[in-house]
Amino acid sequence: MKIGIVGCAGRMGRMLVQAVVNQDGAELAGGTEMESSPFIGHDPAVVAGEVPCGASITSDADKLFADCDAVIDFTIPAATVEHAKLAAKHNTNLVIGTTGLSADDQAIIAEAAKSVTIIQAPNMSLGVNLAFAVTEKVASMLNDEWDIEVVEMHHKHKVDAPSGTALGLGRAAAAGRKVNLDEVADKVRDGHTGERKKGDIGFATLRGGDVVGDHTVIFAIEGERFEITHKASSRVIFARGAVTGALWTGKADAGLFDMQDVLGLKE
Amino acid sequence: MKIGIVGCAGRMGRMLVQAVVNQDGAELAGGTEMESSPFIGHDPAVVAGEVPCGASITSDADKLFADCDAVIDFTIPAATVEHAKLAAKHNTNLVIGTTGLSADDQAIIAEAAKSVTIIQAPNMSLGVNLAFAVTEKVASMLNDEWDIEVVEMHHKHKVDAPSGTALGLGRAAAAGRKVNLDEVADKVRDGHTGERKKGDIGFATLRGGDVVGDHTVIFAIEGERFEITHKASSRVIFARGAVTGALWTGKADAGLFDMQDVLGLKE
Amino acid sequence: MKIGIVGCAGRMGRMLVQAVVNQDGAELAGGTEMESSPFIGHDPAVVAGEVPCGASITSDADKLFADCDAVIDFTIPAATVEHAKLAAKHNTNLVIGTTGLSADDQAIIAEAAKSVTIIQAPNMSLGVNLAFAVTEKVASMLNDEWDIEVVEMHHKHKVDAPSGTALGLGRAAAAGRKVNLDEVADKVRDGHTGERKKGDIGFATLRGGDVVGDHTVIFAIEGERFEITHKASSRVIFARGAVTGALWTGKADAGLFDMQDVLGLKE
Amino acid sequence: MKIGIVGCAGRMGRMLVQAVVNQDGAELAGGTEMESSPFIGHDPAVVAGEVPCGASITSDADKLFADCDAVIDFTIPAATVEHAKLAAKHNTNLVIGTTGLSADDQAIIAEAAKSVTIIQAPNMSLGVNLAFAVTEKVASMLNDEWDIEVVEMHHKHKVDAPSGTALGLGRAAAAGRKVNLDEVADKVRDGHTGERKKGDIGFATLRGGDVVGDHTVIFAIEGERFEITHKASSRVIFARGAVTGALWTGKADAGLFDMQDVLGLKE
Repeated sequence: MKIGIVGCAGRMGRMLVQAVVNQDGAELAGGTEMESSPFIGHDPAVVAGEVPCGASITSDADKLFADCDAVIDFTIPAATVEHAKLAAKHNTNLVIGTTGLSADDQAIIAEAAKSVTIIQAPNMSLGVNLAFAVTEKVASMLNDEWDIEVVEMHHKHKVDAPSGTALGLGRAAAAGRKVNLDEVADKVRDGHTGERKKGDIGFATLRGGDVVGDHTVIFAIEGERFEITHKASSRVIFARGAVTGALWTGKADAGLFDMQDVLGLKE
Repeated sequence: MKIGIVGCAGRMGRMLVQAVVNQDGAELAGGTEMESSPFIGHDPAVVAGEVPCGASITSDADKLFADCDAVIDFTIPAATVEHAKLAAKHNTNLVIGTTGLSADDQAIIAEAAKSVTIIQAPNMSLGVNLAFAVTEKVASMLNDEWDIEVVEMHHKHKVDAPSGTALGLGRAAAAGRKVNLDEVADKVRDGHTGERKKGDIGFATLRGGDVVGDHTVIFAIEGERFEITHKASSRVIFARGAVTGALWTGKADAGLFDMQDVLGLKE
Repeated sequence: MKIGIVGCAGRMGRMLVQAVVNQDGAELAGGTEMESSPFIGHDPAVVAGEVPCGASITSDADKLFADCDAVIDFTIPAATVEHAKLAAKHNTNLVIGTTGLSADDQAIIAEAAKSVTIIQAPNMSLGVNLAFAVTEKVASMLNDEWDIEVVEMHHKHKVDAPSGTALGLGRAAAAGRKVNLDEVADKVRDGHTGERKKGDIGFATLRGGDVVGDHTVIFAIEGERFEITHKASSRVIFARGAVTGALWTGKADAGLFDMQDVLGLKE
Repeated sequence: MKIGIVGCAGRMGRMLVQAVVNQDGAELAGGTEMESSPFIGHDPAVVAGEVPCGASITSDADKLFADCDAVIDFTIPAATVEHAKLAAKHNTNLVIGTTGLSADDQAIIAEAAKSVTIIQAPNMSLGVNLAFAVTEKVASMLNDEWDIEVVEMHHKHKVDAPSGTALGLGRAAAAGRKVNLDEVADKVRDGHTGERKKGDIGFATLRGGDVVGDHTVIFAIEGERFEITHKASSRVIFARGAVTGALWTGKADAGLFDMQDVLGLKE
C-alpha cells in the first residue's frame, strides 16, 4: 500500500515516516511540509534518518493524495479539514491523529467519510486501545463488590490530571458496569475521607521524571486483585498504530472508524 | 439456594462455610465430617467462627444431599466420587474443587453430570479464571512481534515451578496465538542464552515469604508493554468462587462445566 | 527472655502471643486480660491457637510485670500509662504499640524510661521502619532534579488519606532533603494542575478490597526511576516487630527508644 | 569545569556531549574523533543536536587533555590506556566507562591514578549505583528469615542472563549478608524444585520488547515484602552519571575511584 505523510518533517511526522518504511506491506509514497520548510525537496525518509525512499518532500498536498492509497495526518485542525476534502476528491483513505477538532471540523470529516475510509482516534497505540476494550469487558463481568481504581504516572511537564487515557479507562470501566463515570468518579482523597463508597471509580495521579505514560486499572475485592497495565516507553507506538490503521483501510468500506474497529475490539 | 459443604470443619471447609453464610441468595443448609470428627453435632457456622445457622454437622452425606440444592466439595477423590453419585441420586447440583482425580473418577463424575449440573475446576478464583480468559483473548489479537512472558511469585514452601496457574496462563496465551505451549515455552535462562527467540513464551519464577500467589502476563513490543496481573492475598477467593459456581447451577442445565462457563468467558 | 503480653486475648494480643512463642530466645511468661474476660485462667498460648505454655491469663498486671523481663503493650492509653509505672516499679522493660497517647501520657512514659528501657513506635513492622530509614537516606543523596512521589493502597474501610505510613515516608523524604513536608506536599491533583512544581513531594492514594497496606516511594528523573516498596500482607508483622523490640531491650540501657533504634537505623 | 569528550560523535559520545552542555557548572571544552571521521572540524555540540559551543572536533587527544580539567571516556580499551597516560601527563582528571579492560590495561590506569583523579565504573547510572548500596545495606540489616530474590527485565536482544546489573545486585545482597553469592545463587527453577532453600538468593529473568532495564530486589518474609526497584528508560542516565563523576573529580584527591565513592555510598 502506498502511504503518504502530511507534515512529515516534524517530530511526529518523522516517527510516522520511520513506522511506514519499517512496515511490511507499506510503501512510503511521499510527504508534505509547509512551503517555507527547509526540507522541501529532500527525501522524507532521509530526513527521518532512514535510507532514501526516492520521493521528495513537497508542499503540494493535492498531488500527495493523488499518489497515495492512504495518508496519515497528525497535524492541526485547519490542515486536517483540507486533507479530508482531498481524501474524498482523490478517493484516498485517511488516518487522523490530529486533536482539538471542532464540531464543524468533524462535520467535514464525516462528509468525506461517506466516500472513503477514515480512521480517527486520539490515541493510536494498540496497547492503550486494547486496554480500553479489556477494561470494559472485565468491568462488565465483575459486580460492584469489586472496587475499581485507576492509577497513572506521566512526566513532570504534564499539565492536566488525571490523564486523558486514565479518564478513558475510567469511562471504559463505567461503560462495562453500565454507570455514568461522572457520578462515580473519585479524583480527590485528602484528610478524613470516610470509607470508600461502593461503586466508586477512584483515580490516583503520579507525576515525575520523563515517564511517557504508565496506566493501571485495579479491580480489588477481598482476597484478590485483578489488574490491567499499559506502559508506554516511546511515542513510536502512536506512529505504529497509525500505520496499522492505514493498512486496515485497504480492506474496509467507506466510513468513519476508530482504533477499536481496526483492532476488531467491538463485539 | 440451600447449599451444603462436605468436609465442612477443615481449613478449606470453614472458608467455604464462611463464604456461603456471607453470600446473598445462599443459605447454609448443613455440612458433613467423618464420623470420628469431634465436630459432629456442632453447628457448622459456629465451627467456622460465624453466627449459628441452626444446622448440625453430620457424617450422613446422603441426608445432606437430600436437603440441599447444591453441595460444594473440596475433599479427596475417594469421597468426591461418592458425592457425585449422591448428587445424581438426589438431583442435587455439585461444585467440585477436589484435585488429583483419576480418569475412572472423572467417568463417574461425567455420568452424574448427565442428570445434574456439576462444576469442576482446579482453581475456583474468579480473578484467575478471568486472567485465563483475558490472556487468551489478548494473545489472539496481538501478533508475534509481541513477546509474551509470564512471571509469578509464591511462598517459599511451594515445591514446583512454574506454578500450575502460571502454566495455565501460558497455555491460554498459546491457545490465543494458536501455537503449542510445549514448543514455545522457555523456562530456563542462565548464562549465554542468545537473543530471545521470536514466538517464545517465557516463564520466570520467584519464591519467598508467604506470598499466596502473584501472576503477571507481559506482552512486550518496542515502545510499550501490556500486562495482566492477578494478586491473591487469601485462599478465601477459592471459596468465594465455589459459592458463585453453586449459585450459577441454579439456572443451568445438567452437564459438566468449569469456571469459564460460570463466568460466561467462553464465546 | 521472659516476655508478657498485656491484653493477650484480643486480636492483636493473640498475634503477639503467637509471635513470642515462635521466636527463638523468647519465652511467654504470661498475659493479662480484664477481670471480666472469659479467658481469665486459660493458658494464653492455647487461646492464641498455640501449644500450651503453662501460664494462666490473669487480671493482675502487677504480678505479670514482676514475672517478666519485658512486657508488650498494644492496648489503650489509660492502660498503657499504668503499665509504664509498673515497668518502672519492677524494673521490667516495655514495648508500646498503643496509639493516641496524650502529652501527659507521654510524660509518664518518659519518666518511667529514666529507669527502664521503653520502645515506642506507631508502626512496629521492621519493613516499614526500614523503608522510613532508606527513604530518608536516599532523599539525602539525590538532588531536587529527582521528583519524589509516594503512592499507597489500603483496604476500602480506611477513613483517612494519605495513610499515616505514607505521610511518614513523605516526612522521611523531606527530612533527607532538609525541607518541611508541609511546604512541599502535593496531595490533590485534579483538572488543570499545571506542570509539576520542582521540589514537591506528591501523594497518590488508592483504596480497595482488603489490602493491608502497600506503599511505594518513587524518585523519578529523566531516564530512570528509583523505588522503595513495602507490601504488608498480614498484621503479624506488627507483632513480630514488637517481639524484636522486646528482645533488643535486653541489651539496651534505660531510655525511650523507637524502632529506628532497634534496627540500628540512626547513624 | 572544562570537560572534554573523547569519541564525541558516536552514539554514547553524543549523549555525553548533551549531558555536559546541559549541566550547571560544566563547560564543554572539546571532543575528539578518529582522523578519518567526517565530523572532524565540526562543533561537537552541533553534532549532538545542541547549540554550538564554539569548539571543533579534533583527532588530537593530547591537545584536548591539555585544554580540559576532566575528560570522559566511553571508548575502547586500546584508546583508554592512551587516554590514561595523557591524563597523567597533563594533570587532567578522567572518567572511564569503557569496559573489557585487561589486567595490563588496569595497571596503566592505576599508575595514572597516582597523580590524577580517575573514576571507573561499568555502570555510571546514579540510580543503579544507589540500588547496589541500598541493597547491601538492607541485606546487612535483615536476617536470613528474609528470602532474597532478584528479578530483571531487558529487551529481546540481550544475550546473557541474568543481567550484569542483576548479578551485581545479588553480589551486593550477598555482601550485606556476609555470604558468597556463588554458594547461594539459585538461577534455575523448573519442574519439581522442592521448597526454597533458606539463605538462597534467587534470580528470575524476563526478556521482551525494548526494555532498557528494570531491576527489583525483593526481601520477603511472612507478612511483608521490602523491595528496591530501578527502572531505566534511557541510556542518557549513563552519560549523566559520568558528568556527575567528572564534576566530583574537581574536589577529590588523586586516586582510582568508582561511582560508590562519587555518591558517598561507602561508609
